[in-house]
Amino acid sequence: MTYCLALGLDAGFVCVSDSRTNAGVDNVRTYSKLHRFELPGERVFVLLSAGNLATTQAVVGRLKRDLETEGGLHAVAHISEAAARVGELSVEAQQGGREGQEGGAAFQAAFILAGQIAGDDPGVFMIYPQGNYIATTAETPYLQLGEVKYGKPILDRLAAVDMPLTAAARCALVSMDAAMRSNLSVGPPIELVIYERDSMETGRYLKFDQDSPYWRTLQRGWSENLRGAFERLPRFDWE
Amino acid sequence: MTYCLALGLDAGFVCVSDSRTNAGVDNVRTYSKLHRFELPGERVFVLLSAGNLATTQAVVGRLKRDLETEGGLHAVAHISEAAARVGELSVEAQQGGREGQEGGAAFQAAFILAGQIAGDDPGVFMIYPQGNYIATTAETPYLQLGEVKYGKPILDRLAAVDMPLTAAARCALVSMDAAMRSNLSVGPPIELVIYERDSMETGRYLKFDQDSPYWRTLQRGWSENLRGAFERLPRFDWE
Repeated sequence: MTYCLALGLDAGFVCVSDSRTNAGVDNVRTYSKLHRFELPGERVFVLLSAGNLATTQAVVGRLKRDLETEGGLHAVAHISEAAARVGELSVEAQQGGREGQEGGAAFQAAFILAGQIAGDDPGVFMIYPQGNYIATTAETPYLQLGEVKYGKPILDRLAAVDMPLTAAARCALVSMDAAMRSNLSVGPPIELVIYERDSMETGRYLKFDQDSPYWRTLQRGWSENLRGAFERLPRFDWE
Repeated sequence: MTYCLALGLDAGFVCVSDSRTNAGVDNVRTYSKLHRFELPGERVFVLLSAGNLATTQAVVGRLKRDLETEGGLHAVAHISEAAARVGELSVEAQQGGREGQEGGAAFQAAFILAGQIAGDDPGVFMIYPQGNYIATTAETPYLQLGEVKYGKPILDRLAAVDMPLTAAARCALVSMDAAMRSNLSVGPPIELVIYERDSMETGRYLKFDQDSPYWRTLQRGWSENLRGAFERLPRFDWE
């Protein structure tokens, strides 16, 4: 499986992904699921991918060529058109895989696209395997892919469209930590992008291994703080 | 859906359940999923149920009759035999439902049975729809039914076989709170049983509505403490 998430905020956006792929419980491998496409000063995109690796790699390859050939992602005028482009390439790649095959769910993939085109607002979209897409809103500022349930409660409590980018990044990392602890199919390295609105460049990119100092400090700090939070809970009246 | 969980501890056991049943997103109703069977001083059982309501009601009915007729649950010598009895009745009830029908998954049900028979150790078992069962162990002191993922991270962090019963009860309630906040199909009232090892009576039974003072205090306290725990997390090095 996979766990990826993105927060769309007043101040910009934050993307986080794990890097574990697996077929069943064996054939476990490490592939980056966070892809950056940018023309500095003009357009910035971050794509998070989940699902069939052949499909996601095909889509990522086509998007790269878009930028080289000045079509597609390079030419779209609004960020929602970029989401549509991802959907179109995804459906195409899935159909390619299915040709002459039975079934088809195995070729499915889903994406989160976050980005900004100069002169337009930034946007964060989830693109379904069917190619259609939804955006974050002020009420629901986050989107998730893959093993979404473990890390959802902390987002439901803390994620807010007006939070600072660094707090949002920590919130996303804490959500990732929950998924990694409770599900073997979510694993390091963790990739993080923090994009500041109107900066028009990818901004902060961080990659954490299990042993990266900040990741360890964060994990330990969160564990200790949670334990403290639990110990300070109100007692039952007979205690 | 449903969310039920139980912790098997050195000091006894704790059972918590929600009370929402639904078929799709409408036809939402309230049914207790926590059933107590006891012969004070002799044998105490708490059954948590999930799945098809006709199946679980049939099983609960049969277990009640067991106690009246001095068979089954009333006669078993060990707590694991009680789990086997639940499995046997469950498979029977599911087969009854399936007769002359296509499919069958719709009649499935799963259970958690916690209890103690005088002279024997207490035990906590999960009984699968197939009738077989597993027990908690010192390494894995908790079992869950239904919408298990939202409330799992906090259990993975905190649940320990040597924790005091009241702390375990709070841990289970916090896990329930996570599931209720993030999933509409899990809803109040929340029922809680705290059983002290060798007490041979059901012990503390609490039922919380959304507005019950302790539940509200706990929810508010946990929210505030979590927010504090988050705010005290270590900063990125550039902050």
